Order: sequence, then C-alpha cells, then structure tokens
Amino acid sequence: MKGDHGAGEGGTQCTVLWTEGQGEKGQAGGPRAGLRPHALWRLLDCSGDMVGLDTYVRERPFALQLVVWFLRGVSRVILANNPLSGALILAALLWASPWQGVLGTVGVLASMLTAVLIGQDGAEVTAGLHGYNGMLVSLLMGVFSSAGDWYWWLLLPACLGAAACTFLYSGLSPVLDRWDLPVAVFPFNIVIVLYLLVTRPDNPYFPHYPSLPVGALQANATELNTAQLLQGIFLGVGQIFACDSLGPSLLILGATLLYSPLQALHAVLGSAAGTLAGLSVAVRHGSLYSGLSGFNGALGCMCVGGLFFTFSWRSHLFAIATAFLCSYVDIAFSNLLGTIGLPACSWAATLVVTLMLLLTGRGLATYRIPIGQVRSPEHNLSSRSQWKAGNTLDPDSTVV
Amino acid sequence: MKGDHGAGEGGTQCTVLWTEGQGEKGQAGGPRAGLRPHALWRLLDCSGDMVGLDTYVRERPFALQLVVWFLRGVSRVILANNPLSGALILAALLWASPWQGVLGTVGVLASMLTAVLIGQDGAEVTAGLHGYNGMLVSLLMGVFSSAGDWYWWLLLPACLGAAACTFLYSGLSPVLDRWDLPVAVFPFNIVIVLYLLVTRPDNPYFPHYPSLPVGALQANATELNTAQLLQGIFLGVGQIFACDSLGPSLLILGATLLYSPLQALHAVLGSAAGTLAGLSVAVRHGSLYSGLSGFNGALGCMCVGGLFFTFSWRSHLFAIATAFLCSYVDIAFSNLLGTIGLPACSWAATLVVTLMLLLTGRGLATYRIPIGQVRSPEHNLSSRSQWKAGNTLDPDSTVV
Amino acid sequence: MKGDHGAGEGGTQCTVLWTEGQGEKGQAGGPRAGLRPHALWRLLDCSGDMVGLDTYVRERPFALQLVVWFLRGVSRVILANNPLSGALILAALLWASPWQGVLGTVGVLASMLTAVLIGQDGAEVTAGLHGYNGMLVSLLMGVFSSAGDWYWWLLLPACLGAAACTFLYSGLSPVLDRWDLPVAVFPFNIVIVLYLLVTRPDNPYFPHYPSLPVGALQANATELNTAQLLQGIFLGVGQIFACDSLGPSLLILGATLLYSPLQALHAVLGSAAGTLAGLSVAVRHGSLYSGLSGFNGALGCMCVGGLFFTFSWRSHLFAIATAFLCSYVDIAFSNLLGTIGLPACSWAATLVVTLMLLLTGRGLATYRIPIGQVRSPEHNLSSRSQWKAGNTLDPDSTVV
Repeated sequence: MKGDHGAGEGGTQCTVLWTEGQGEKGQAGGPRAGLRPHALWRLLDCSGDMVGLDTYVRERPFALQLVVWFLRGVSRVILANNPLSGALILAALLWASPWQGVLGTVGVLASMLTAVLIGQDGAEVTAGLHGYNGMLVSLLMGVFSSAGDWYWWLLLPACLGAAACTFLYSGLSPVLDRWDLPVAVFPFNIVIVLYLLVTRPDNPYFPHYPSLPVGALQANATELNTAQLLQGIFLGVGQIFACDSLGPSLLILGATLLYSPLQALHAVLGSAAGTLAGLSVAVRHGSLYSGLSGFNGALGCMCVGGLFFTFSWRSHLFAIATAFLCSYVDIAFSNLLGTIGLPACSWAATLVVTLMLLLTGRGLATYRIPIGQVRSPEHNLSSRSQWKAGNTLDPDSTVV
Repeated sequence: MKGDHGAGEGGTQCTVLWTEGQGEKGQAGGPRAGLRPHALWRLLDCSGDMVGLDTYVRERPFALQLVVWFLRGVSRVILANNPLSGALILAALLWASPWQGVLGTVGVLASMLTAVLIGQDGAEVTAGLHGYNGMLVSLLMGVFSSAGDWYWWLLLPACLGAAACTFLYSGLSPVLDRWDLPVAVFPFNIVIVLYLLVTRPDNPYFPHYPSLPVGALQANATELNTAQLLQGIFLGVGQIFACDSLGPSLLILGATLLYSPLQALHAVLGSAAGTLAGLSVAVRHGSLYSGLSGFNGALGCMCVGGLFFTFSWRSHLFAIATAFLCSYVDIAFSNLLGTIGLPACSWAATLVVTLMLLLTGRGLATYRIPIGQVRSPEHNLSSRSQWKAGNTLDPDSTVV
Repeated sequence: MKGDHGAGEGGTQCTVLWTEGQGEKGQAGGPRAGLRPHALWRLLDCSGDMVGLDTYVRERPFALQLVVWFLRGVSRVILANNPLSGALILAALLWASPWQGVLGTVGVLASMLTAVLIGQDGAEVTAGLHGYNGMLVSLLMGVFSSAGDWYWWLLLPACLGAAACTFLYSGLSPVLDRWDLPVAVFPFNIVIVLYLLVTRPDNPYFPHYPSLPVGALQANATELNTAQLLQGIFLGVGQIFACDSLGPSLLILGATLLYSPLQALHAVLGSAAGTLAGLSVAVRHGSLYSGLSGFNGALGCMCVGGLFFTFSWRSHLFAIATAFLCSYVDIAFSNLLGTIGLPACSWAATLVVTLMLLLTGRGLATYRIPIGQVRSPEHNLSSRSQWKAGNTLDPDSTVV
C-alpha cells in the first residue's frame, strides 16, 4: 500500500505499457489466460499499477496530474493503484448516491491538500497514499449522518477528518516502519471512531445513527434467504466503500478486476468466507444480506492473497484463513463497539493483516514482499518468477 | 518462557540427569537444602527443566517425543518447563473435570499442529512454546460455556481458538523481541476475549456465562470466613488453569514444587498478596474464596521472583510488589470488562510482568535474565553464582 | 520533558544566571521585549530552566537540594522546569485547597522516593522527572474522592499510585525512546484510570464521584454566558492541576509566565481553542465554564508551540491545530470513558502530542528538538538561531 512510486522510466505511455504488457503480464499469464481474447488487449494494458502513466503525465498540465493522483487515491481504498479503477469506483459511488460521491471526492482532496501543506514526501502524494483514508472517513461520515443527504455543513467535519487522517498517516508510519508494516487504514479507523464519539447520536449539529451489535438480540425468526445471501457476498465488496446497492458494488468489483483479476477473485472469496463465518455464529440476517459481514474478510483476503505475499497455493490458503480470522474478529469488535453504538469499521481486517505481515512461520513469511516493492498481485508474481529464474533480472524491483 | 531449547548434549537420560543434579543443583542447594532427604534424590533429579530428557528422547519413537513436547506445553502454563509437572497438572485437570482435561489436551495439540503447519521454528515446538496458549483458550472456553460438559461442538471453537493463538504468538514475537520481551500469554488473553465477544451469552450454538465485576454491587453482608480465605490462597494457584477445587489445585502446586520449589513458594506468596489486595478494596467475598483474586498475583510473583530475574532479596521484594500491582490491576480490569460481561483473564499479570521486564531502574534491571537464557529459578540462580565466581563456567548458558 | 540535566557548569548562581541572561535571553528578546522593564531584571533571571541553580545548590545542604528537585517536579506538570514556578504553583494549590496542596506534595515525594529506591538514574530524579506524574495522580485522587477533605486514609492510595507512576515511567521509557518520544503523562493517565476502576464509585473505603460524558444528555437550555466562557479559558490553565478557582488558576498562569512567556501565551491560546472546539460540537456548558474543555488544548498547544518544536510561525500554526485536535479527541474520550463513569484526564493531549512528535512531514519535523535537548521555549529558540548563525556556538546544547 506504499512505495509504488519511482520506477517505470522513459518512453511514452503506449510504448511503456506495451512493453510492460509483454514483459511482465506474459509471465503472470497463467491465471489470467482465459481473460485475454484479442479484443481485450488494450484494456489489459491498462491493468496493473500503470506506472508508465506517471511518466506520460509528468509533462502534461498540473490539473491532469492532480486527476491521476486523485484517482490513484480513490483506488487505494480497495488496495488497487490504478487511475482507471479509481474512475470506475468514483462512477459507482456517484451512481449509488451522488452526495456520497461528492463527499468522497472532498475527502480525498482535503487529505491530499493537507499532505502538501504539512510537507509530506511528494512521491507519497503522487502515489495517492494520502487520499484513501480521507475518502473513507468522509464516506462513512455521510453514511452514518442522520441529517440526510446534501447537508452541506457535513463538509466541515469531512474536511477536518480527512486532514486528521493525513496527520495520523504521517505519525504512524515511523512506528510501523520499524517492522516494515503499511499504515493501511489505521488512520481512517481511528478518525471515524473519534468522530462518532465526539458527535454522539443526539448531537444538535452533526447527528448520526448509532450502530447495533451484529450478534443481535433481534429474533432471526425468518428463514435464511439464499438469494439475498449470495447477493450479500457481492455487496461485501461494495461495503468496502460503504455502498450497499448491487449495481455499484459489481462496478467496484469490475474496477478491481481491471487492476488485477487475482485481487478480484480474492475479494469475492474473502467476502464469501466472511458470510460463512457470520452464519457459523448466527449473526443478524441483515448483516449477512447487506454485505457487512463480508467486507472485512474481503479486505483481509486481498491483502494476503497476492498483494503483500506472492500468490501461491500456500498463500492462497493463508488468504482464506485470514478471511475467516478477519470475519470472526470483526464480529467480536462489532459486538464490543456496538454496546456503545459504534461501528467496527475495518479494524478487524487492519489488525489481522498487520498480524499476518508479522508472522514468522516459514510457511507464510517466505512469500512476504517488502512493503516498498508491493505492486499488483500479477506483477508481484512475475517479479518473483523472474527473480527465481535468474536472480534480479527484473529492473523494476531492483530500482524500487 | 522461550528458548529453553538446545543445550544438554550427550549421554543417556539417567547419566545426564545425574550429572546435572550434581553440577547445577548443588550450586543452588541453599534454598532447597531442607527438601533433599536421601529418598528424594531421584525425584529431585526430575526437577528443573529436564534438558537431559530431550537428548534421551531424540532417538526414541516419534510418539514418545510428541508426548514430551505436549507435556512441556502443559507445564508452560504455570511457567514451568518440565514434562513430569505437565503430567501431574494433566492428572489434576482430569481429576477436577474429565471434560476439562480433554479440552485442554485438544487445545495443546491443535496449537502445536498449527505451529508445524505454518512452519514455525521446530525448537519452539519441541520446547512446548506453541501449546500453553492454546490450552488456556480451550480450558476457558469450557469453563465459560453454559452448554454443559461433553458438548462436543465446543471442540470446534477450541481448535480454531488454539490455532489462532499460534498465529498471534508468531506475529507478536517479532514486535516484543525488539525489547527482549516474552510473548507470554498475550495470545490467550486476546483470543479468549474475542471468542467471548463473538459468541455473546445468548448465542444459539455456543452460549456462555457472562462475568461479573469483582468490585460488586452485591452486599458483602456476611462475615469473612478465614478458613475459606486461606483455602482461596491455594485455589489461586489452581485458578491459573481455571480449576476451582482444592485437591487438584494442591496437585498443581505440587507440580510447580517439582519443577522448582522457589517458583512454588512465589506462587503461594503471590496468591496471598492478591487476596490481601482484594481485601483492601473490599471485593466480592466469592472472588476471594474461589481464588480468582489471587491467580494474577501468583503469576506475577512467579515471573519476577526467580524466573525472569535471578532470585535475591531484592528481586524477592520486587516480586511481592509485582504481586500486589498485578492484583490491583486485575481488579481494575475485572471492573472494566465486567461492565460488558467479560472476564479479566490474566491480562493484568501479563501486562505488569511486561512492565517489570522493561524497568530500567538498576535495583531490578541488574537481575534481569535475557529471555533466551531463562531456565528454572534454581538453575538461573546457580548460573549466576558460577558466572560471578569465575565468569562463564556454565557451558549451558553460554551455548544457549 | 526529559534530559534537562547536566549543563550549566561553573560560577556562583548569580554570575551564571547573569551571563545566562545576557547570553541566551538576549537572543530571544524579541517576543518578550515588552515584558522587560528595568525593575524586572532580577525576576527575568529567574525565568527559564534555571540550570545555574543546580550548580549553586550542589554544595548546599541535602534538604535544600531536595526542595529544588521537589519544586522542579511540581513545575514539570505544566511542562516547565523551574523551581520558582513550582513554588508559585504549590502556593496556588494551597490557596485553592490546603488538602489538595498536601496531597500533591505527598504525591511528588512518594514518586521521587520510589525512583531512588528502585535505582533510577540520579539525573532524572534531580531534574524532577519522577515527580509530576505522582503529583497529578494524588491531586486527581483528591478531586474525585467523595469522602471529603482531610480523609487521611486517602494518603495510602496516593502514595501507592505515585509509586506505580514511577514504575510505569521507568518501564515505558525504553519503549518510547525508540522513537525519541517523552514518557510525558502516560503514567499518570494509566494509574488514575486504574485507580478509579479499582475503587468503583460505591467503594466502602475509597468512594469517588463518577464522571459524566461531556456531550451530555442534559439540556443546554440556558443562554451561553460570555463572561463565564472567558473565565473558563483561564480556568483551563488551572485545570491542568485539577484546580477550578480563578485566583489560583491565574497564579498558575503566572508561574508559567515566569518560566516562559511563550509557553504562557500558548497555554491561553490552547485553552481558547479548546473552548471553541467544545462550542462547535455543543458540549455541556458546565464543561466550558469550568475550563475542563480547555486544558487538553492548553497542554497540546504548549508542547508544540515552542517546547518540543522551535518556535516559528509554522510551529505556531501547528500548535493551534494541535490544540483543536487535542480538544476534539478529548471530547471523544470523555464521551467514551464517561459511559462507564471515568474521566478522560489528559489522554487526548498526551496521545496527540506523541503523534505530532512522530510526524514526518517536513513542515513540522524540521523544527523538532531532540528530547534530550529540550529546554524552555525561549532557550530553544536562541539555541537554534545561534546554531543557524554559526553552527554549534551554543555550548549548552552541544554538552547536553
């Protein structure tokens, strides 16, 4: 989630993308071969981290550069780093609720602006690292607000919260760096909990809905609806952006697919694991149907299955285990925080993934990718095969 | 609690044990002299860490090796590392409740198996380091379960919880290693709290009893019963294994005595300090009588009084201070977590001992034993005397 | 907040103070010029860290040395390090409530004595670092106690709590040192929360008043009283010592002014920012009037505006941002902890300042002063100008 900057020098976009497509994507062709009919060539060149785009954009107007940084920040939320994915996600959010789209946009911009003002490293800003936390904070503020849509005063806490995320990102990174850990969404989780605590449900200016524990007192009298359950699995991907309608959720999944098919696969798998975990301890049906049971599993599964660890059958199994662990921990946190009306956000996924990154067992640790070299799952996989084949043949990973 | 592996090469068990008895135990003879009548010779040779046994077992069938690793894991709960202590403790648990004995066994095995599967260091597994957390989790799941004994479905969360402990152990160790701290029972405390949060008291599959704060609203109308209070001190040692009957508790104390008389002495002292602390702030009588007030004190006192610090009058006084500190912190945690129906487990002892290990004051820090060289209190004491006498005469401590 | 020891060699007090006054204060004359009429010369020489006093006192009776260490400890609470400020503060506390004065004195002494007993570094003790946490603990115990003034039994937990602070200080410092962070008031915040948890409101021996969340359910029916609001800003400075009367609060502000005018300015600014933050989310009027909304802001503002960061327009702006951040976080913590009747103490300021010290953004990080070289804001400023002018012309900062 960090350090995807630098790299990818020279040439125009097309050339770079093309050779990149030839060089790396070919390596990782295996799992994606079925997705590569001739007509999709150009689309696939726009997948992955699109590092070539940065070179291309560097000589264009500042406004265009800003748009790219902004869209990278949007895609970072779902652990991608691809401006096109970001654009698709933004479209999905605007489709689901224009007000949420506006809030999210404001959040990313406020966060990026703060980063520039407090003098954060430019490379971090251009890579969109100072955006996704702010976006999540403002999106969640909108979702929990009981003042209705287009309550413009909400932009005030949204901007302040997004700015606070940047402070937290900047302050947490030296601590987590000691163990080569990403800051991930710790800032978002901290800020949103604090915001909801500051403005209790009955606040006169910024009222919000209280959250309920998922292990609920409410009777699960009705039969389980299988169709809704399956829908919940896909909504779990949308819930990463606090979006609970099917169409936009599928569009968000599509944006992930564009970035990396492996990642999209793990997102759905993780969401399914979360739903199973929820079933096993009889959580509220509403939580299963809305995808809230699944999104922590999806996040955890994506992180372990290919992003921070090279994809392999072992790391794939670990990814599924992580998804279950994330989901159970999320249920625990939801029951705990729900007693005082707070949501569990993505605390579970953030903490469990941090734990998995710290794991010393050789079964997983050998697949660990240093945070500074993390790219899209497919690129990670091909880097490793090349490295295994002839040691440091990949210029990208050595430069970074 | 870590690194008691390696060391002790050559010879058969009998020879090694004998010479070990001669070599090291003689040094530490002082405090235990009264316990060494002629008939107890053989018994005493089986005390301490029994490092010789590992050499002996290495060439025997795998099943026997597994039993030794398993029993070491059981004894680790009470900070011992002695298979015979482990066997006595297992007998005590089976005596108190066969179902608890089964649960504990399953917990240790699930935890060890997970460690092997995720590729943890073999030496850690053979030393039983990946067992005691799992055992505690499954024991506590059984104690809190309101579904009655022999509810076989409970083995499912018991196994998953024990496996999660191994993940946490593996993930926490690189963080704590920075300050040369042991992982101790952090994994157990985290997992059991999460389990109880996931399955709220009214869960349809895994119901459990809620916990009450110790600083209770219930009237302490009756007079204090001195006999029960004294009994509570000894029950405090059994409560380390969530066992609240006198006979098994005394057997567990006996197992500790077998490992190290110093440790057994501190266990009783710590439990008594905990009871005193409980009296001083008027906790529920039930908590004093059942030994729940004492077990955190006992754990803290054992750790500081001889295990992680060389025994001396100073570290002895610090051990008593630690016992009081542990007990007060435990009361605080119990009142805090009790408001949402959770038990305080051994959070207090774990955190306070971690604090004492970090202490920079020369009064205690000079007695600190590096985690990799921790052995039984008597062995620690003799190592230090030898080291003081002629610098590095003890081959064990230099090898490790 | 650490390491203000050593330094200041040679000469008698007068000479040293005089030359110090000439050498350093002259540099920083700008912001204080208006405060320096001829008659105030001697007074101003007693401002700052008074390092010369240590040399003077070293050859005097031990009782006098002890008094100086004690008074330094008292002044440390408000981030000063000046025995005269300490004396003024003690006078203010005795004026507000003699019993509180006695409790505070006992707290500092118990804490210092414990530090000597457990063998802490002598330089830390003489600099008063092992006093302020103990003082705050015993002051707060007195404020929350519902047993009335002159309840002598309270001295028992006050002493134990103050001693526990020293243990925590000693144990936390190696952890925080890794990132060059001060221990600050973490020990106080931990110990007071634990004490209030151990002795629930209805404790038979040590009863106390429960705290209310600030974002209150109680109707803010009445109009806002501007005079009381303004008074609340100044009470915010007194609330750092849990003092809520105007006279003593102004005296405490005077003590800060004596140590450093810059610090006093930031204390008032921070308190005002806290009051504004409280207004913006409609907290209870009582919390605004009593200064409770302001003191976290005051603490945060003082730390960032000149103490841990060299004073400049940038760090000044950061200080104001910190004050707002502290205040919002304090409201959040107060709402959170208030649900179980606990106060938020100064957790907010402590955590936010720790965050600001970790900030990597060049906008603030370039002004960061290493913890071992922190002195009064004016001295920090002059050190930096001298260092900028001719690189290491200031002998003090190089020696330390």
